[in-house]
Amino acid sequence: MKRLKLGMVGGGQGAFIGAVHRIASRIDGRFDLVAGALSSDPARASASAAELGIKRTYDNYEAMAINEAARDDGIDAVAIVTPNHMHAAPAIAFLNANIHVICDKPLAATAEEATTIQAAFAESKARFFMTYNYTGYPLIRQAREMVACGDLGDIRIIQAEYAQDWLTGATDQSNKQADWRTDPARAGAGCIGDIGTHAFNLAAFVTNMVPCEISAELSSFVPGRKVDDNAFIRLRYRNGARGTIWSSQVAVGCENGLKLRIYGDKGGLEWEQENPNQITFARFGEPKQIITRGGAGLGKGAERWTRIPPGHPEGYLEGFANLYNDIADIISGTNDSELVPDLNAGLDGMWFISSCLASSEANGSWIDL
Amino acid sequence: MKRLKLGMVGGGQGAFIGAVHRIASRIDGRFDLVAGALSSDPARASASAAELGIKRTYDNYEAMAINEAARDDGIDAVAIVTPNHMHAAPAIAFLNANIHVICDKPLAATAEEATTIQAAFAESKARFFMTYNYTGYPLIRQAREMVACGDLGDIRIIQAEYAQDWLTGATDQSNKQADWRTDPARAGAGCIGDIGTHAFNLAAFVTNMVPCEISAELSSFVPGRKVDDNAFIRLRYRNGARGTIWSSQVAVGCENGLKLRIYGDKGGLEWEQENPNQITFARFGEPKQIITRGGAGLGKGAERWTRIPPGHPEGYLEGFANLYNDIADIISGTNDSELVPDLNAGLDGMWFISSCLASSEANGSWIDL
Amino acid sequence: MKRLKLGMVGGGQGAFIGAVHRIASRIDGRFDLVAGALSSDPARASASAAELGIKRTYDNYEAMAINEAARDDGIDAVAIVTPNHMHAAPAIAFLNANIHVICDKPLAATAEEATTIQAAFAESKARFFMTYNYTGYPLIRQAREMVACGDLGDIRIIQAEYAQDWLTGATDQSNKQADWRTDPARAGAGCIGDIGTHAFNLAAFVTNMVPCEISAELSSFVPGRKVDDNAFIRLRYRNGARGTIWSSQVAVGCENGLKLRIYGDKGGLEWEQENPNQITFARFGEPKQIITRGGAGLGKGAERWTRIPPGHPEGYLEGFANLYNDIADIISGTNDSELVPDLNAGLDGMWFISSCLASSEANGSWIDL
Amino acid sequence: MKRLKLGMVGGGQGAFIGAVHRIASRIDGRFDLVAGALSSDPARASASAAELGIKRTYDNYEAMAINEAARDDGIDAVAIVTPNHMHAAPAIAFLNANIHVICDKPLAATAEEATTIQAAFAESKARFFMTYNYTGYPLIRQAREMVACGDLGDIRIIQAEYAQDWLTGATDQSNKQADWRTDPARAGAGCIGDIGTHAFNLAAFVTNMVPCEISAELSSFVPGRKVDDNAFIRLRYRNGARGTIWSSQVAVGCENGLKLRIYGDKGGLEWEQENPNQITFARFGEPKQIITRGGAGLGKGAERWTRIPPGHPEGYLEGFANLYNDIADIISGTNDSELVPDLNAGLDGMWFISSCLASSEANGSWIDL
Repeated sequence: MKRLKLGMVGGGQGAFIGAVHRIASRIDGRFDLVAGALSSDPARASASAAELGIKRTYDNYEAMAINEAARDDGIDAVAIVTPNHMHAAPAIAFLNANIHVICDKPLAATAEEATTIQAAFAESKARFFMTYNYTGYPLIRQAREMVACGDLGDIRIIQAEYAQDWLTGATDQSNKQADWRTDPARAGAGCIGDIGTHAFNLAAFVTNMVPCEISAELSSFVPGRKVDDNAFIRLRYRNGARGTIWSSQVAVGCENGLKLRIYGDKGGLEWEQENPNQITFARFGEPKQIITRGGAGLGKGAERWTRIPPGHPEGYLEGFANLYNDIADIISGTNDSELVPDLNAGLDGMWFISSCLASSEANGSWIDL
Repeated sequence: MKRLKLGMVGGGQGAFIGAVHRIASRIDGRFDLVAGALSSDPARASASAAELGIKRTYDNYEAMAINEAARDDGIDAVAIVTPNHMHAAPAIAFLNANIHVICDKPLAATAEEATTIQAAFAESKARFFMTYNYTGYPLIRQAREMVACGDLGDIRIIQAEYAQDWLTGATDQSNKQADWRTDPARAGAGCIGDIGTHAFNLAAFVTNMVPCEISAELSSFVPGRKVDDNAFIRLRYRNGARGTIWSSQVAVGCENGLKLRIYGDKGGLEWEQENPNQITFARFGEPKQIITRGGAGLGKGAERWTRIPPGHPEGYLEGFANLYNDIADIISGTNDSELVPDLNAGLDGMWFISSCLASSEANGSWIDL
Repeated sequence: MKRLKLGMVGGGQGAFIGAVHRIASRIDGRFDLVAGALSSDPARASASAAELGIKRTYDNYEAMAINEAARDDGIDAVAIVTPNHMHAAPAIAFLNANIHVICDKPLAATAEEATTIQAAFAESKARFFMTYNYTGYPLIRQAREMVACGDLGDIRIIQAEYAQDWLTGATDQSNKQADWRTDPARAGAGCIGDIGTHAFNLAAFVTNMVPCEISAELSSFVPGRKVDDNAFIRLRYRNGARGTIWSSQVAVGCENGLKLRIYGDKGGLEWEQENPNQITFARFGEPKQIITRGGAGLGKGAERWTRIPPGHPEGYLEGFANLYNDIADIISGTNDSELVPDLNAGLDGMWFISSCLASSEANGSWIDL
Repeated sequence: MKRLKLGMVGGGQGAFIGAVHRIASRIDGRFDLVAGALSSDPARASASAAELGIKRTYDNYEAMAINEAARDDGIDAVAIVTPNHMHAAPAIAFLNANIHVICDKPLAATAEEATTIQAAFAESKARFFMTYNYTGYPLIRQAREMVACGDLGDIRIIQAEYAQDWLTGATDQSNKQADWRTDPARAGAGCIGDIGTHAFNLAAFVTNMVPCEISAELSSFVPGRKVDDNAFIRLRYRNGARGTIWSSQVAVGCENGLKLRIYGDKGGLEWEQENPNQITFARFGEPKQIITRGGAGLGKGAERWTRIPPGHPEGYLEGFANLYNDIADIISGTNDSELVPDLNAGLDGMWFISSCLASSEANGSWIDL
């Protein structure tokens, strides 16, 4: 199988999500990371590239997009892993160069930026992928299958929550991750953008339903914080279903508490990201079942994305790698998976963020989505 | 220790909560059930009393209140365990007879009924107790102690949920419990009254905080159902804390899923009724602790309400019995526990119900509580 | 329903298991505790009786057996809740008086004492019950049903364990419970008698299989301790099945960790006493199921012993009360349940203890049971 | 950082553990797989190599060892991932060629083979690594640190278990994995070799204690099976500690149930492989703690082997990759980690297997280890 050539924008020394993308791209051995503009600081960019053994290093993404497009052995795709406000410009540069874009979430810091990406995409021959990575967990795809084939019946209630505690106290500039994520200019929003979008996307992915109305109550509990650190959100769906999202970065004791619960008129299921290798499923009037990754009762579809036998836990990185694997399929033309979140998922996330901000400012009034 | 004499209104054949009250009153051996008007049907009332070995049976509560008040060996207290719309009349009769009242929740089916109870109470020498029984769990009392002594710091987020699935499908009259609980005339409201009030009360009990504003989104998912079977509720507190309550009786796979999660700026705790013998507690920046009933780390206060060593699970009935034990203390004058929910807790519950109904009709607008 | 009259030997001030028996006998309201010889110290005996409101107090069990047998309103049954070495003498006295005996476990401190009880029983008209209380849990009875009806197929592996930590350190005489339980003269053995017998009995109860050979490795980890505080035991069964029991009172972090795991050629089940309201059950090649007390999938048999709906946890005391309820049925003649452990179960327990001691002294050699 | 060149023997189409080694070697990007003798069938070997994009393919390991040793760009290390009876010959060939060996467990099918490896190692300049991969889990290394620094006090009780159910029924030749693992000639032993050695190694790794005596009871429950499928093992340690290992491949409902429980006179800890991102730890007399991978309370040592923040689960593959990462450090000379299991661990495992077989044949007699 031909290996693909990957480039990266962002992800230099001190970054978090760039390292995750690199591991995810390596796990199934289908990408070689060969080019990068790893930092907006050229010295740091080249030092980072050297440390990582990346052959071609660029001072900036513009040069990288142009040069890589011109090379015979240029990159097939670029991963954009910068802070939110630095997604749009490189995304547009690579779309213009017809190089496939793998963009970390959320799509951008502002709705305006999102619109410019949308415009560039319309003119480009390249594909656009959003790493809403939690959709890559095999049991999330199992859950999606179960909903689709009617195991839960008509969906009534959707509960998603994503609770962390790492921003419980005041933060300072020395914490690079906390610093930009609590800066409205660079992040666009607080916990609703950083993690709330994941919960929103996951609920939509599993149910294949997008809400039509949204109401939000955002809070900033830490004195001086300029973005939201807690959000209570209500969702209304066209079929009459109702949902909630709880997103928080000040819930003491929660590490990465992404949970999904879905109830229909025939069945209900629950999944927790911190123990991702099982789904709890109940048909009404029958005992609960524990469906495990790779175990009995798993759907044919979900089996595709599991590498090792049941009881051998796969985790966050393997779920992330499933997206890279699907992207490799799509780019190689071997399998045009519809499961990888695309630009529409990114735009939905931006609408989610802006609607939450608007609703909360209007005392929780319902906003049409 | 002198045993107290207990009477009961309701709780005849086919009833549920009456049997629970009887067991709860027996566990610590401080009450003898000696009189009853167990059914509004006199034949069923006397048959039920005979079956239970209750000496004095009455055709109706009016006669019972008058006669028992007149006897030298009359009852010390009466437990009212009828459907919601049948709480007010007997409660008033026994308050007028100066006999202590132990009333199941919610206080009444309507706010008007609640007001009449309040008026009778003001004129009575008797005490009034609400069996919001979940407050009797030792670890709930432990949680209250922990909040009070500052283990969690300033409270920011309160999450209570109470999810069941037994009303997932349409019900018919043959299910006596389902029948009256889904009839607006007898129940007053649906899941918000039947179980939402428990969640509301529990959050208030543990935090010692009552919300000042409330917003609700009620649903009736089952076709033809006349009361709510799912509710999403938001709470605002004077200190800036924010909360949610989720109450549902159509969440497939949930048996009696009452859960409480509270987060402050120093710590967080979680408790689940289905596994009530432990609290998960985290101080920010330290590993989570498992605090068990009777185990290490338990507060002195909570130890009072535990009968057996750690690891020997106590359950729902023992928690319920703790209320009866406290009530016995209060009536006997040995200990005027402030922990037993009283008429005010009942009235708060009625305000909760009516506010939820009002907010939901106003598309989720905030209602001052 | 006629209430039965109960007496008690032992269980005075400072005792543990006596209070448990009293609660268990009250929960279903079928016994009145009317007579007692609560302590071998007459002053403490009468003080304890007064405190508990027991009408007839005796200085010693001999007088109690004779007098109660002679009264028209004498007790129907006696609960013997003394330390192990004080079981035999009162048991024999009441058997001789043809009063039913409810004896705490183990049957006695020595095999010789057990034999004398056996002889007295052979001459008596009374019944003999052993409160191996864990057999009273509804889901243990469910497990027994499941094994009996072949849900697990042919049984291959039986794992029982009972781990506590309360004897981790050296003990002194001020801890009354620890004192007698670590004294060979009063207890007969250490953890194998105190808790190992429970595990042994429970495995036999659920599988309806008694092992034919046993091998044991006993340890006394605490310096100066004269009885075992940890035991590793192997079991062989006639059908080729193999089992183990682990019993420990020095396993730090274990509160009352009684667990049972049984595997056959068709299915396997697991149960843990600290969360007793569920069984995990797997048919080979199918997803695991969670079978709950009162929930879907529960056997008709097990439903008999559950008082409240699923999700409302019952605990240790309700399980214990199920034995008292069954005993009331048997004494009243309404239902001759074969489920209550009887003298044979007590004798099996004594053989278990003596075989463990013999095997361990012989370096773990196999002993025929 | 210089990337190392890796070769592989075994692991062609249809194999299991070879694919795991390949992923593990890729995760941290420190190895390139450049050569292989992936099958003893030359056609399958080259087809497998082509499929995997491996540049240099060999018909047999002898040619591979000689040629790779002769090349300037020859492999730095070889992974041997053949069935057990095919470990020794290639291991010796590569040791003779002074190429580092990464050998899957157990070391060999027989003690004789193990001895020949030992002899070759004594003459070689190469290092020898055993992929007892469960030692790579960060929290297992945390547990080892905790024992070493005295958090548990003097160790008294060690319980390891490894239960699976995939060999519950009879197997046939069509299941390639089951076929060789139940063939005495190719596997050497049954579940004690396949998984029991993992449990034995893990207990030794965490406690840094090797037992001095062993007693075993092996069973073959499936009719016609020629190797053990269930084993109960007892261990004695020089310091007086006692242990057990339970290993089974017929425990219905168990997927990959490797669990470790260790108790000392000051503390106890528990870890389960299926949920590997947490340790439960109790100091005697204090509440239990949940120590998470990456979370508060983690030792400095263990932090080295974690790639992503707490709550983002790492799994089996990352644990395996930690061994490859350590091996890369050792080969590169950057860090001579003593944590990677070496030839001695492999020999201990062989002694464990042969002692279990000997003890079980002698009716469970104690064997000096």
